Amino acid sequence: MRSFASDNYAPAHPEVLAALSAINQGHQRAYGADEVTAQLEQRFMELFGPNTKTFLVWNGTGANVLALYSLLKPWEAVICTKWSHINVDEGGAPERIIGAKLIDLPAVDAKLSPAQIAEAFIRTGDEHYAQPRIVSITQSTEYGTLYSVDEIAAIADVTHKNNAYLHLDGARIGNAAVALNKSFKEFTTDVGVDVVSFGGTKNGLINGEAVLYLNPLLGEKVKHLRKSLMQLNSKMRYTSVQLLTLLSNDLWKRSASHANQMAQLLANQVSKLPGIKITQPVQVNAVFATVPQSVSDNVPNEFPFYVWNEHTNEVRWMCAWDTTEQDVTDFVAAIKRAL
Amino acid sequence: MRSFASDNYAPAHPEVLAALSAINQGHQRAYGADEVTAQLEQRFMELFGPNTKTFLVWNGTGANVLALYSLLKPWEAVICTKWSHINVDEGGAPERIIGAKLIDLPAVDAKLSPAQIAEAFIRTGDEHYAQPRIVSITQSTEYGTLYSVDEIAAIADVTHKNNAYLHLDGARIGNAAVALNKSFKEFTTDVGVDVVSFGGTKNGLINGEAVLYLNPLLGEKVKHLRKSLMQLNSKMRYTSVQLLTLLSNDLWKRSASHANQMAQLLANQVSKLPGIKITQPVQVNAVFATVPQSVSDNVPNEFPFYVWNEHTNEVRWMCAWDTTEQDVTDFVAAIKRAL
Amino acid sequence: MRSFASDNYAPAHPEVLAALSAINQGHQRAYGADEVTAQLEQRFMELFGPNTKTFLVWNGTGANVLALYSLLKPWEAVICTKWSHINVDEGGAPERIIGAKLIDLPAVDAKLSPAQIAEAFIRTGDEHYAQPRIVSITQSTEYGTLYSVDEIAAIADVTHKNNAYLHLDGARIGNAAVALNKSFKEFTTDVGVDVVSFGGTKNGLINGEAVLYLNPLLGEKVKHLRKSLMQLNSKMRYTSVQLLTLLSNDLWKRSASHANQMAQLLANQVSKLPGIKITQPVQVNAVFATVPQSVSDNVPNEFPFYVWNEHTNEVRWMCAWDTTEQDVTDFVAAIKRAL
Amino acid sequence: MRSFASDNYAPAHPEVLAALSAINQGHQRAYGADEVTAQLEQRFMELFGPNTKTFLVWNGTGANVLALYSLLKPWEAVICTKWSHINVDEGGAPERIIGAKLIDLPAVDAKLSPAQIAEAFIRTGDEHYAQPRIVSITQSTEYGTLYSVDEIAAIADVTHKNNAYLHLDGARIGNAAVALNKSFKEFTTDVGVDVVSFGGTKNGLINGEAVLYLNPLLGEKVKHLRKSLMQLNSKMRYTSVQLLTLLSNDLWKRSASHANQMAQLLANQVSKLPGIKITQPVQVNAVFATVPQSVSDNVPNEFPFYVWNEHTNEVRWMCAWDTTEQDVTDFVAAIKRAL
Repeated sequence: MRSFASDNYAPAHPEVLAALSAINQGHQRAYGADEVTAQLEQRFMELFGPNTKTFLVWNGTGANVLALYSLLKPWEAVICTKWSHINVDEGGAPERIIGAKLIDLPAVDAKLSPAQIAEAFIRTGDEHYAQPRIVSITQSTEYGTLYSVDEIAAIADVTHKNNAYLHLDGARIGNAAVALNKSFKEFTTDVGVDVVSFGGTKNGLINGEAVLYLNPLLGEKVKHLRKSLMQLNSKMRYTSVQLLTLLSNDLWKRSASHANQMAQLLANQVSKLPGIKITQPVQVNAVFATVPQSVSDNVPNEFPFYVWNEHTNEVRWMCAWDTTEQDVTDFVAAIKRAL
Repeated sequence: MRSFASDNYAPAHPEVLAALSAINQGHQRAYGADEVTAQLEQRFMELFGPNTKTFLVWNGTGANVLALYSLLKPWEAVICTKWSHINVDEGGAPERIIGAKLIDLPAVDAKLSPAQIAEAFIRTGDEHYAQPRIVSITQSTEYGTLYSVDEIAAIADVTHKNNAYLHLDGARIGNAAVALNKSFKEFTTDVGVDVVSFGGTKNGLINGEAVLYLNPLLGEKVKHLRKSLMQLNSKMRYTSVQLLTLLSNDLWKRSASHANQMAQLLANQVSKLPGIKITQPVQVNAVFATVPQSVSDNVPNEFPFYVWNEHTNEVRWMCAWDTTEQDVTDFVAAIKRAL
Repeated sequence: MRSFASDNYAPAHPEVLAALSAINQGHQRAYGADEVTAQLEQRFMELFGPNTKTFLVWNGTGANVLALYSLLKPWEAVICTKWSHINVDEGGAPERIIGAKLIDLPAVDAKLSPAQIAEAFIRTGDEHYAQPRIVSITQSTEYGTLYSVDEIAAIADVTHKNNAYLHLDGARIGNAAVALNKSFKEFTTDVGVDVVSFGGTKNGLINGEAVLYLNPLLGEKVKHLRKSLMQLNSKMRYTSVQLLTLLSNDLWKRSASHANQMAQLLANQVSKLPGIKITQPVQVNAVFATVPQSVSDNVPNEFPFYVWNEHTNEVRWMCAWDTTEQDVTDFVAAIKRAL
Repeated sequence: MRSFASDNYAPAHPEVLAALSAINQGHQRAYGADEVTAQLEQRFMELFGPNTKTFLVWNGTGANVLALYSLLKPWEAVICTKWSHINVDEGGAPERIIGAKLIDLPAVDAKLSPAQIAEAFIRTGDEHYAQPRIVSITQSTEYGTLYSVDEIAAIADVTHKNNAYLHLDGARIGNAAVALNKSFKEFTTDVGVDVVSFGGTKNGLINGEAVLYLNPLLGEKVKHLRKSLMQLNSKMRYTSVQLLTLLSNDLWKRSASHANQMAQLLANQVSKLPGIKITQPVQVNAVFATVPQSVSDNVPNEFPFYVWNEHTNEVRWMCAWDTTEQDVTDFVAAIKRAL
């Protein structure tokens, strides 16, 4: 099957499988006390700065929930966009597990503005109002858009002025980094991001997500919380080696660049088709478009993809590390047939 | 002190105090197995219909949380307005205690429309999306407005068509009933409301709130949930007698009518003042208005009230069962001095 | 009705009702910003020491849950006895609301020993084990027994040595104080108790419970947590005045002494009856005994009481502030008839 | 490194790695809608009966929490042993995530008896007591012991008579099956187990755990709960293929039998050593023993293992699918040197 449904429909990169096999011998301490995990922690310190504290978890929802939970008091809230993955795609896990309110702000391109954030810090000290304590942004966003480095810096600034923390959901952080042509550190640690959900799964791993505390004052005792949130992996070396492989030899960069390029190619081709309107800037590996009903009814049988908005028939087409030019050509042909 | 801050700044009605003293003798079974509570349950059946199941709780937040919790599966969500008390005035209790997501929709007058509700039932069966299962409306609303009987019927209709329940937060249900000139039953049970948070505290009790299940299929085993939510009152007779008194001899009606009239009087008088703009229809016992900074800075020293919106300087003036015409006159005079 | 079921079957003391009526005039700020609550906070500082921070809540379960929640990290646990109210009589509220584990230790007289506590601090730093952080004792205990001042001091010592906090559930703290013939402060603040659930309801109030932080390092921001736990009382003056009345003119002492004396009288009389075996030292206002089935089957129709242990037919007889010598005489007569 | 610490220190079986590589091509639907997961669901129906509903999760804690959560009302409790993994080795996750009370009963060999269970169903319908609704047993147990088929049948009987469900934590279910010489179905579905946590990780997988609903009335809508508990695996085919491989060609049986045999070998050899006392019957792949301090101080440097009881210096030695006779010989030699 070929698809444009999600980067998690794609297989794992062959280098990742090879690395799994390579470490599959002998005993290693469980629960993250193994040698591979130690190497990975070191690698994250190289990439995000020497104060980085790393906690591997099972999946992106686990990463976001652990990151947010660890920074919140029971009466505090999270500012995010209406479109954020934590708000609409995690089955209510943040509310269920943390018990925290999400204050979801409107955002046409899934990006928060500093002014919007500043306005959301209201009723400080009023016990009747859940107190905003975290601002959570997604990079690249759920709409395939990007925050510039300056935009993140400005958000960090208003966040910190309001005595809050800045969380970055990096489920597709690799796609963002190559699109920005910046190192991870330049758009996170260096501009004031406090904690990152670092995602590898969507960039060619079987599974591999981590919470990275960049603010040196944060991240104490998180291992206890991770366990009580069911996010502790016993044979952690097998996840660690995947992330280590991704972060070695530029695998992450090669894969993410390719996926982004395929999205550009797809956008160029579909933008010429009648009845299809691209709705968001194509900045990473996703193309969002409104399409005629015939397209969303018929094409997914051949190439699965998701309808993003039931009311407007907006769809999402996602490219992966393994999407080929031929895939794009075939997909566009299928769309044409459906039109 | 006199105030226009909230109907909970007011004292209890003398008839309530008298009733408390009258029952203060002898032993009674604790935790609601007493005779007074039995009488109250009977009274609620008279007022809301013979299938009504009554559960007393401590306060309005407790009523809302118990009502919602009892109807939700762990992955389900509540549709409400952005202005709803459950969303912005309960310290995040619904999320913290229930673990449920609130889907808060925009509403200029704090009222949901059926069309809005219909649009919010999306992604049915999609495990990534918290599934809407309750629609919660407030009557009278947080903005002092009213749903008509027909509006509630239409909301119940769209709610039930989507396999959901309709909750009515009646913290000020008495004020609503007298304004509509309807019995409680006519705008709840008769038009499809499934569960009500019935409030007495704001209408002249010391404390007295109840969850009323009107839908005969609901309300089983709620006593267990109430206890585990810390909402079980041991000496319940003392709360029951307050509500029983409120619901006898039209006390609720006398008190609510008076408070509503005082709000009309206040609205009439302030509407003539320069710089003061009434922002919502005055339908019950609240007046909302935008005012010059000098008013919100100075008047509360003499007559406390709340600023409702920090950004627009909208304020709320609330009348109570004990607000007098003289109070209104004095308050308006204070506003004039501040202008 | 007369009963030996619970001190919460009894009415409120007339002085309490009189105090309620006395303050029932004029407006007061809601949610604890009123003058009566300020006076009560002052009174608690006199009784428990100048660092005492007071937070009124609705009921005993609310007090215990708030006290424990405010001191625990999400992965921490509470050491208590198997018989503790938090463990077996709060409908699972501590687990449900806090999400914390209770480590319930065996205790024949419902009292923990320092040695037992010391042994329970195991696996420190092991994320697989919920980390004990609070020791919770009840004074007087659920079995009507008492910790001596020295015993509490020794428990506080072992608790603090293990980097934990000592909580005292004082649902019947008045009965304990008069039995010990000590001031509240002498067996709490002075010997290292960090936080107290102070109960008034069972000693002749309608309702009145408070969490008292005695350790000056604790108790910050608790008002937010209280609200999000649905324990914030809007018209707080009415609860505050009850506690203030209880703590004035030795009302608490008069009532508790009397209840304790009635339990002694009852114990003396029943201890002579055949087939009835008193199972616990009678130190406050409760008598525990194993009785023939005929007693637990028949007597409660006339004088309600609870079976404490279904397997051994152990029953609990509780005296209240209003129990009379005649009540005891009549009750013993009823028992004799049933034997 | 070689160890006797845990079967999760061992690597994955080579057949598992080969299977991962074999399916690593092409796109597959995410979140369990793939072909491999469908095959696995079919396989579990063959092994546990045609009504089996399968839900893959990330780890054993996730399996236990999902299984328990899905069967409990908010005020219900779980009966288990003091030694159960859910009680002492999951960082308090069941309480934190479910909010449920664990009623932990004493059990010298980590096994519950039917009589003990029957006695634990007390106070039915009493809202003050968290109502027992699940009995959870572990097979093989945390102490390396086994329930016979008849024992499980008797437990199921008393459980169902009390209107409760029987959960079996099968983190080492393969070791149990080969030790009993029974099919999975014979000691679960056939004797009334309602739900199983099926573990593959400890029997030679990288990761692979599943919740199996055997009772045909259970398991509806669990996919929603799984997602909201952060237990939904996006690229599920990679976990499914591991379990499918384990359950094909008797891999599970070969691996578990070998591990069990190595434990027997180890037990035979250490039982002759002075100062070492085996404390539990060696029925599967674990040996429990009290040892001199010199053993627990020194041997783990060479062969890691866990101290099970800090107070008695009882240790646990666990054999894995890859433990060799040479490992046993070397380990016993190390113990002798330490003695």
